[in-house]
Amino acid sequence: MNKHCFEKAERLAVYRAIAERRDMRHFLPDVVDEEVLTRLLSAAHQAGSVGLMQPWRFIRITSTKLRQQIHQLVEQERVQTAKALGEREDEFMTLKVEGILECGELLVVALPDEREAHIFGRRTLPEMDVASCACAIQNLWLAARVEGLGLGWVSLFDPEALAQLLQMPEGSRAIAILCLGHVEEFYKKPMLELEKWAFVRPLKEFVFENGWEK
Amino acid sequence: MNKHCFEKAERLAVYRAIAERRDMRHFLPDVVDEEVLTRLLSAAHQAGSVGLMQPWRFIRITSTKLRQQIHQLVEQERVQTAKALGEREDEFMTLKVEGILECGELLVVALPDEREAHIFGRRTLPEMDVASCACAIQNLWLAARVEGLGLGWVSLFDPEALAQLLQMPEGSRAIAILCLGHVEEFYKKPMLELEKWAFVRPLKEFVFENGWEK
Repeated sequence: MNKHCFEKAERLAVYRAIAERRDMRHFLPDVVDEEVLTRLLSAAHQAGSVGLMQPWRFIRITSTKLRQQIHQLVEQERVQTAKALGEREDEFMTLKVEGILECGELLVVALPDEREAHIFGRRTLPEMDVASCACAIQNLWLAARVEGLGLGWVSLFDPEALAQLLQMPEGSRAIAILCLGHVEEFYKKPMLELEKWAFVRPLKEFVFENGWEK
Repeated sequence: MNKHCFEKAERLAVYRAIAERRDMRHFLPDVVDEEVLTRLLSAAHQAGSVGLMQPWRFIRITSTKLRQQIHQLVEQERVQTAKALGEREDEFMTLKVEGILECGELLVVALPDEREAHIFGRRTLPEMDVASCACAIQNLWLAARVEGLGLGWVSLFDPEALAQLLQMPEGSRAIAILCLGHVEEFYKKPMLELEKWAFVRPLKEFVFENGWEK
């Protein structure tokens, strides 16, 4: 406990949001309230970023035609990914990996162009722009959860084809298609664990001291 | 409002954590409680990850000698970055960019080796491992804030030199040196804005509809 510590109920709320956030693929078609959407984007925009470069752009997809085209791109990559998985191809094809056509709001999140001008914190680690953009998305994800909305991060797409579809400038790069919307239920565990695709391993396997441990 | 929505006080707590989180460089030397540290690491470990690959490893630095060596690596990169910044070299050198020697806990966060085995969601976007790892760090950052602890993400280092220092396997890659600890005060605004290095731009410049906007 210290003077900057939040009240107990506030602390628990934040830990609850972290624990109950899920990567959602099943949505109800209900509309997302405009004010809520603005709160979520504001939460994203409050993320920290390397050298304060704020390397995130949010493209809201309100065109039904564009939504269908994006869905087609993802469907193409789903098939390609399945093939690349070899012996797990059939198993992968049974998974629901996106809710693009069902969700209330569809957002594309992209890194902007002209990122090479930002050197602070990126000279040796250029991928810090991806990291900052992901922090913004995590803020949005947690805020969505407390608003009772599900969010799914889809990364099954060819970024060049998506750039063309959305007239993105050279040097920009989409890293997320976000399905956002109301849900019937939040998964009790990560969906890939419920589907027995992969399993969460215990924290202690991920924490080392003073060097890598085998 | 919907049935999955958190209570109002809970929602406000999460938005408060998001708004008051800061990238800290000034620390008090006080010890971080072990139980709190475990809660923070657990929060990180609850992040979603592409294909459930959980691409994060946390190396806790408890050796004073290692901490000093890490500080030296960062100091070397600080000078290199300043040179690369050209006309802003002198201005950059006046900024405090890390609190490695002062903070109560020092953590290195790294992507693991053998990531190439993970194809799901990464065939066309291999950087999704960085994104997942960043989501974990954002969880930790928000959890630290509610515990009243500051956290600074330092990315001024040569990842190969750090890998050697920490005996990291080939293919792994550190993306963060995290300074964690008690602080006198949280900055009212991002430190780089207070120092007039860069400025936060309004959200509306970051939100487009159905395509990129100039």
